[in-house]
Amino acid sequence: MSHFSGNVVVLTGGIGGAKLVLGLSKLLKPEQLTAIVNTGDDFEHLGLPVSPDLDTLMYTLADRVNPETGWGLAHETWSFMEALEQLDGETWFRLGDRDLATHITRAQLLANGQTLTAVTQQLCQRLAVNVRLLPMSDMPVRTRVQTEQGLLDFQHYFVRDRAEPRVNKIIYDGAQAAVLNSATMAALTDKDLGAIIIAPSNPYLSIDPLLSIPHLRHALTKADAPIIAISPIINGAAIKGPTAKIMNELGVEPSAASIARHYGDLLNGFIVDQADRDLVSEIQATGITTIACNTLMANLDDKIGLAQHTIEFAQSLS
Amino acid sequence: MSHFSGNVVVLTGGIGGAKLVLGLSKLLKPEQLTAIVNTGDDFEHLGLPVSPDLDTLMYTLADRVNPETGWGLAHETWSFMEALEQLDGETWFRLGDRDLATHITRAQLLANGQTLTAVTQQLCQRLAVNVRLLPMSDMPVRTRVQTEQGLLDFQHYFVRDRAEPRVNKIIYDGAQAAVLNSATMAALTDKDLGAIIIAPSNPYLSIDPLLSIPHLRHALTKADAPIIAISPIINGAAIKGPTAKIMNELGVEPSAASIARHYGDLLNGFIVDQADRDLVSEIQATGITTIACNTLMANLDDKIGLAQHTIEFAQSLS
Repeated sequence: MSHFSGNVVVLTGGIGGAKLVLGLSKLLKPEQLTAIVNTGDDFEHLGLPVSPDLDTLMYTLADRVNPETGWGLAHETWSFMEALEQLDGETWFRLGDRDLATHITRAQLLANGQTLTAVTQQLCQRLAVNVRLLPMSDMPVRTRVQTEQGLLDFQHYFVRDRAEPRVNKIIYDGAQAAVLNSATMAALTDKDLGAIIIAPSNPYLSIDPLLSIPHLRHALTKADAPIIAISPIINGAAIKGPTAKIMNELGVEPSAASIARHYGDLLNGFIVDQADRDLVSEIQATGITTIACNTLMANLDDKIGLAQHTIEFAQSLS
Repeated sequence: MSHFSGNVVVLTGGIGGAKLVLGLSKLLKPEQLTAIVNTGDDFEHLGLPVSPDLDTLMYTLADRVNPETGWGLAHETWSFMEALEQLDGETWFRLGDRDLATHITRAQLLANGQTLTAVTQQLCQRLAVNVRLLPMSDMPVRTRVQTEQGLLDFQHYFVRDRAEPRVNKIIYDGAQAAVLNSATMAALTDKDLGAIIIAPSNPYLSIDPLLSIPHLRHALTKADAPIIAISPIINGAAIKGPTAKIMNELGVEPSAASIARHYGDLLNGFIVDQADRDLVSEIQATGITTIACNTLMANLDDKIGLAQHTIEFAQSLS
């Protein structure tokens, strides 16, 4: 356990953020740690509500995640998809047999009138996840991608079309009208809040959906705790996913410095990978205190190491 | 192929009826054969509409049924149920991973506003089942069992409580108001109808739900084609399921003769197993032409044999 006594909020997307939150969970007491999770990727598929990032966090923290992919469940089987294919069903989005239990349970609880926040809490309880996972809003915010092939729903762009279409613009449908649930508002206005961490997630697809909610952005600007982002770009490339490709398509140089500029005034601190240590002074010059350390999270020690560096950095900024 | 040129309607529940319809399908052209299927067992489970008897017919005719059980799919896997159990979900009714594809597809098509008849037709097309399967009504009819433990929904009685509670009475909720879909009405009033066969299903749980729909019973009484029932009771016992137990609880002697009396005036012909050939004259005395033959359907030859006997019997009654 760390000596860090403050509470920590992490703004996060899926895989990379889940790894960081897992690292933090090994250093902090469960009640110290809250993850506010992107729901812009959520969609209804085969009549079931799917929340990919919430599930990645939940499965990672429950130690049930598929270690090969970083998402989905370990020991997954695919009989349902095989049978669905025989019924000429939609098979471009793969739902595993075990994973279906989550979606069907969530569908039932939502149909009973519960909020996504309450449903997430119940699923976490059942999987013995004691870090608090909060959807960024209980109201639907849906990321859509304006591409050369027209406006695509996020999962159509990301999974069905493998993020191949060239991106012109990304929109967050519903964000303007979305309100924060009371738990999220409480976490962000908590007197004991010691750090707000923006996970090394894709800024456009995973973090901007959160920041596009006016109430959430406003709460961040009012927070006393330092806000620290970790660059998802290392040496001009993303660890995983299309972040660098999208930056190129949007006319932004894919670099850690661009990520810092992207978040801009919101940040008090920024962490780049040690491979980008020569960018530290350039980013510092923009007024954001910046450090370099290992940000690759290949194993649990790496995750705990990055979590430790991030917490210590937050303490130094307080 | 049989020389039987008329069309055939089978009124049926699940396993036994499915075997008979499979036998008939080997003798008749697909367009000659229609099964009108009990939906009194249907229920919503985990938010999904489940139609056990329709599925048993469909899987049997698609040659995908689990040969060990007579219901469900062959090569089924159970990862979903395992994961659902870890989520403290309801696991008393077992939904296999492959089987879920049927329920989720049906749920989607029904949610799109299609009737159960249209949905069944689509599922059959996708599984290359060309016998016409028709739900007895597109309106919900729900079998409920009045027991010593109170009124139980059918699947609670049958699956959860393993048909153990003592039965006082069986009711068919919604039957009075149920209308026939146009395809069912057309099949029953077809000028070329050569036989109406009541499958060797449980009369109380599988056939009476159909007969309790006034429009369906009326169409049967008006039909010119002979109506033939096959006894599900052989030598005082049922091949499968609680038929004999329920008859005892209702104060009816479990015998083929009691089954004939149960259907009574509706019948023109009755088939008992060869083991019950000494009952033939007793049943004949009630005015129902009766024959004895092998009615056990252990293998495909048996199914075709019983189908052949039934068709020939119908011809003799025409």
